[in-house]
Amino acid sequence: MDDVLSRAEGLARHSDSPDHYTRTWLTPAHQAASRQLQAWMREAGMEVRVDAVGSVIGRYESSGSDPKREVRGLTPAPRIMLGSHFDSVRNGGKYDGVLGILVPIACVAELHKRGERLPYAIEIAAFSDEEGARFQTSFLASRAMLEGAEAMNSLLERRDADGVSVAEAMRAAGLDPVRVDEARIDTKSLAAYVEVHIEQGPVLLDAGRPLGVVTSIASGSRHLARVRGEAGHAGTVPMGMRRDALAAAAEMVLAVESQAKAAGGVGTVGILTVADGTGNVIPGTVEFTIDLRGPDDATRARLVAAVVGELEAIAARRKVAVEVGKRHDVKAAPCAPWLQDQLEASVRRAGCDPMRLPSGAGHDAMIMAEATDVGMLFVRCGAGGVSHNPAETVTAEDVQVAEHALLDFLRNFVVPA
Amino acid sequence: MDDVLSRAEGLARHSDSPDHYTRTWLTPAHQAASRQLQAWMREAGMEVRVDAVGSVIGRYESSGSDPKREVRGLTPAPRIMLGSHFDSVRNGGKYDGVLGILVPIACVAELHKRGERLPYAIEIAAFSDEEGARFQTSFLASRAMLEGAEAMNSLLERRDADGVSVAEAMRAAGLDPVRVDEARIDTKSLAAYVEVHIEQGPVLLDAGRPLGVVTSIASGSRHLARVRGEAGHAGTVPMGMRRDALAAAAEMVLAVESQAKAAGGVGTVGILTVADGTGNVIPGTVEFTIDLRGPDDATRARLVAAVVGELEAIAARRKVAVEVGKRHDVKAAPCAPWLQDQLEASVRRAGCDPMRLPSGAGHDAMIMAEATDVGMLFVRCGAGGVSHNPAETVTAEDVQVAEHALLDFLRNFVVPA
Repeated sequence: MDDVLSRAEGLARHSDSPDHYTRTWLTPAHQAASRQLQAWMREAGMEVRVDAVGSVIGRYESSGSDPKREVRGLTPAPRIMLGSHFDSVRNGGKYDGVLGILVPIACVAELHKRGERLPYAIEIAAFSDEEGARFQTSFLASRAMLEGAEAMNSLLERRDADGVSVAEAMRAAGLDPVRVDEARIDTKSLAAYVEVHIEQGPVLLDAGRPLGVVTSIASGSRHLARVRGEAGHAGTVPMGMRRDALAAAAEMVLAVESQAKAAGGVGTVGILTVADGTGNVIPGTVEFTIDLRGPDDATRARLVAAVVGELEAIAARRKVAVEVGKRHDVKAAPCAPWLQDQLEASVRRAGCDPMRLPSGAGHDAMIMAEATDVGMLFVRCGAGGVSHNPAETVTAEDVQVAEHALLDFLRNFVVPA
Repeated sequence: MDDVLSRAEGLARHSDSPDHYTRTWLTPAHQAASRQLQAWMREAGMEVRVDAVGSVIGRYESSGSDPKREVRGLTPAPRIMLGSHFDSVRNGGKYDGVLGILVPIACVAELHKRGERLPYAIEIAAFSDEEGARFQTSFLASRAMLEGAEAMNSLLERRDADGVSVAEAMRAAGLDPVRVDEARIDTKSLAAYVEVHIEQGPVLLDAGRPLGVVTSIASGSRHLARVRGEAGHAGTVPMGMRRDALAAAAEMVLAVESQAKAAGGVGTVGILTVADGTGNVIPGTVEFTIDLRGPDDATRARLVAAVVGELEAIAARRKVAVEVGKRHDVKAAPCAPWLQDQLEASVRRAGCDPMRLPSGAGHDAMIMAEATDVGMLFVRCGAGGVSHNPAETVTAEDVQVAEHALLDFLRNFVVPA
């Protein structure tokens, strides 16, 4: 089998920055990575195309397929799609996304080496933009695959930090902004979408399991809270007369934490800003983000309601004002039980005790779930579960068993009647 | 009497910015304000000089004084100094500092108009730099008056936001950086320093009193705390496995608040920063300032120890690291009881119920206390006690009684045997 780790290492050298690994949509580094992925896919015996938003899609034909059939308008042979993304967050980790492209390529290469074809075609989608760090997009490439031009609605004029618009960036990369709709695929013949991904958390590490089968991709809500109290001189306003926006926000941060714990979800305040913060001034205005997730939509909705209620109670008690604005909601995407079962059986045959766990992070699988059944296989994350960070790591042994499990899964894949 | 409010209004038009009132040391606006103050002092019958750091000092001779005596080496007549500063914070209030220059000028103008001299000379010091917003200095002008060149130690090379050094700024304003030591005054003949100042807090407003006699200027400590937890993905790290630096810092902010309350001091976290804050990342590092003040040094020291102890306990419980570094300490400056008594008697004779209160904010009087007895008269602050803010306000009636009280104080001023 190919050495997935050394490929991940090599691919990370295609970075927008010389100092750290950052690869964003359609930059020269991103295009170089795309060319490298195309070469590896071809080497693995796949036919390769680049879609209208820059995703790289390789196809390994099934044993019974005739590649001309689709062109002649006949029902194509069913296919399974594997994949993940090859863009990164700023100063990201080398395995996030990339592992879900390289492990499938290694499996197909193994099949190809043995001259082995399966009853289904295998497609590997290397999505060009999932993190969306350049244009603040979100799952752009997988959305374009399902929604076509609709995924780009109101995005074409958006500009990156250097003032380059989406349309300009596309043209510079040889893509035509008016042909985005061509990214749309025919989903009728898609039997399943399966994504291998680094866990990005400490659960497998903590449980001592190399692989995990994902039960569902958590639903999430992002809110922005603004607390308005009254600014004042830090030396002259007695404690009992203060309306300190930061002290109120501090109570709210702890309320997010305790409510998330109580609800069995997760809650995070990742950004908190004191407006015009000065050491000797009582904060007058504080803003913070609230990220709430639950294993299912009902849990998350209860958690949101509980947090908002707590925030309002704290604000009332402290005589400050709080506004909580919703930024966006993402629905939970359950993984198909039949895919969970087949993945679990393969994990077991690869010699590991299987473990099922929800995914707290969003993935392209969440988008693909709108069109087909999805499954996800998590690979244990080292370094305490750190991800979106240069310290993100996996072991060669864990990647090896992931390859074994995925190859076993492909060989035994059966769409239930 | 002169209209102090309209003069404060006029002086605020000498601003570094056309959009808001900001006047920092030695800028063109600051020099224009200096010339205006010199003109008003001369109009009030004072001899005026500008010292080596740009402070404006007016002198109104005593009834029995011979201005030549000092030159001939005889013991000069005793004098009382009144004053405050004419620089501002960024986007500050029009009365902060300026009131303590304009009210004394109005009193001297009244004496001058009546041809009235007192047994003591009156000096009014308009300090050029107290807030220190341009070069991050602190009480520079009053320090230079007592310490001479020592006050400028290691400051000459400091640069403002435009890269202009202190030495360059001084030369541009016609001051000679090597002659700073000449700012030092002879303090032996100084009988007292009395500062009129807007309260910058809500205590007088809340008590319904126009004037307050300050008992002491609070001691203060400024610390910087850094909390290090572990960054992680907001969706993937279960609540029980987190070492969230912001959740820990939130508990610490509340500990500062509760400990300050319990100690009878004040405690403020004015700046809090989440390093690399991102909505979907658990904060790994958070920094915040801690401003702690107490009516006396012992109370403040107990408060500091209690806060540091609480922070360490919280960090240990949450398995994060906390470092607390001291930035600076300011000792409490008690106001002389005999000056408090004489000021209180004058407030009463001006028709007001007197009230004594500590000053939570630092003032030039705190520096002058190192050389002479000091007293402070607070004027009620409107708008809920807001200061360091364009909303800072006083009423014409309150300023009127402050003028009456200060003039009465000067007429009845007696140094105790």
